[in-house]
Amino acid sequence: MSTRKEHKGGYQTTYFDGDTVETGKGERGPRVRRVPSGDSVERLVCPECNFINYENPLMVVGAVVTFGDKFLLCKRSIEPRAGFWTIPAGYMELHETPLDGAKREAVEEANAAIEIDALLAIYTIPRISQVQMIYRASLPEPHFSPGPESTDVGLFSWDEIPWQEIAFPTVHWALNHFQEVRGQSAFAPFTNPEGATGTL
Amino acid sequence: MSTRKEHKGGYQTTYFDGDTVETGKGERGPRVRRVPSGDSVERLVCPECNFINYENPLMVVGAVVTFGDKFLLCKRSIEPRAGFWTIPAGYMELHETPLDGAKREAVEEANAAIEIDALLAIYTIPRISQVQMIYRASLPEPHFSPGPESTDVGLFSWDEIPWQEIAFPTVHWALNHFQEVRGQSAFAPFTNPEGATGTL
Repeated sequence: MSTRKEHKGGYQTTYFDGDTVETGKGERGPRVRRVPSGDSVERLVCPECNFINYENPLMVVGAVVTFGDKFLLCKRSIEPRAGFWTIPAGYMELHETPLDGAKREAVEEANAAIEIDALLAIYTIPRISQVQMIYRASLPEPHFSPGPESTDVGLFSWDEIPWQEIAFPTVHWALNHFQEVRGQSAFAPFTNPEGATGTL
Repeated sequence: MSTRKEHKGGYQTTYFDGDTVETGKGERGPRVRRVPSGDSVERLVCPECNFINYENPLMVVGAVVTFGDKFLLCKRSIEPRAGFWTIPAGYMELHETPLDGAKREAVEEANAAIEIDALLAIYTIPRISQVQMIYRASLPEPHFSPGPESTDVGLFSWDEIPWQEIAFPTVHWALNHFQEVRGQSAFAPFTNPEGATGTL
C-alpha cells in the first residue's frame, strides 16, 4: 500500500497503517497548540504568520482483486513493511471518488486495470485517524506488472497466499472478509474484526 | 450539519457541502505551490519555513435517525443553509471511528443518543473532496432538543418532511435511500444517485 508521507505538517511522518517517525520539530512554521478564534479544538498554529494547520482523518482506498480464484498481491518496495505483501491500496487524493482512487492505486502499484463490483469493508484505525474503504474487484485480463511501489506482483490461490509475509493487519482482514462473501451479490460491508484496532 | 470551517490552511474556507469563501491570501504562511522533494504532487508550501500544507479529502459522518415511523431533523442555526433542515451530520474528528462520529454529531446537533444499525450510504462530492458516510439509526426514546448548531429539532412523518426546506442534496438522497431499504436487515450501502455530484 501507499507510503506517501503524511500529514502532520512536515513535522511528523505517519506511514500508512503504521509507524510514526519524527522528522524534526522545526523552529519555524506551525508549532504552537492553541484554540483558534471561533473554534473549539486546539490546532497547531504558526506563531509568526498565524497559519492554522487543520488535521483531519485520512482515507485509504483499495481493493481485494481476483482473477478467477486467485488474488492479486503486491510486494512492497518501500517502507514501512518493504518486502511484505499487500493488496493495492493507498491514500485517496483530492477531487476523486473512492472508486476512482481504488482503481488508481491498482494502476500505480500493479499496472492493473481493475473492475470494482462492491464495497467489501470499511476499517477504522482511530490511533492513526485512518479510515480504509476496501472494495471487491476483479481483473478482466491477467495483465499486471510491478509499479514504482512494488518489487513484485503476483496471483495467488488462497493456499498460496504468503500469510507470514502480509504487510498489514487490514490486509489479513480484507482477504478473510472477501472469502466470507465470495459469490454473494449483496452484503453489508464488513468493519474491523471484533476488538481489532489495527495496531501492528 | 456541521459548518466547522475547513481546511485549506486558513486561506480558504470551504463550508460543509457547499460554498467556498476566500478569507484572504496572506503575505505570509504557506502560499507557494511546488512539488516537495520526494513527492509527485504540487503542495502549498511556506517559502519562509518550508512548512508543507498537505490537503486531503474530508470525511463527513451522519445518520438518518428514526423514532417509530418518524424522522429526526434539525433546523440549522448557522450558515450555509441557516433555517433549512438537515439530518445530524458533520466532519469526522481525529481519533474517532465513523460510528462514534455519527453519534457525536447527533448529540451536538440534537442532544440525541442514537443507536446505529447499518451503513446506509456513502456519498462522494469530488468538487469539494468530500466523502459522506451516512448511517441508519434509531432513537430509543423521544428525547431531543436543539444543540448549538440548531434552532429547532423535530420528528416528521414522511409526508410531513419539509422537502422544500431541506439544506443539502445529500439529505434528500439519504432520506429516499432510507425508504428504499426500510425494514431490510442486510443491504449494500447506496452511493450517489446516477449522475448526481452533489452540486447545489
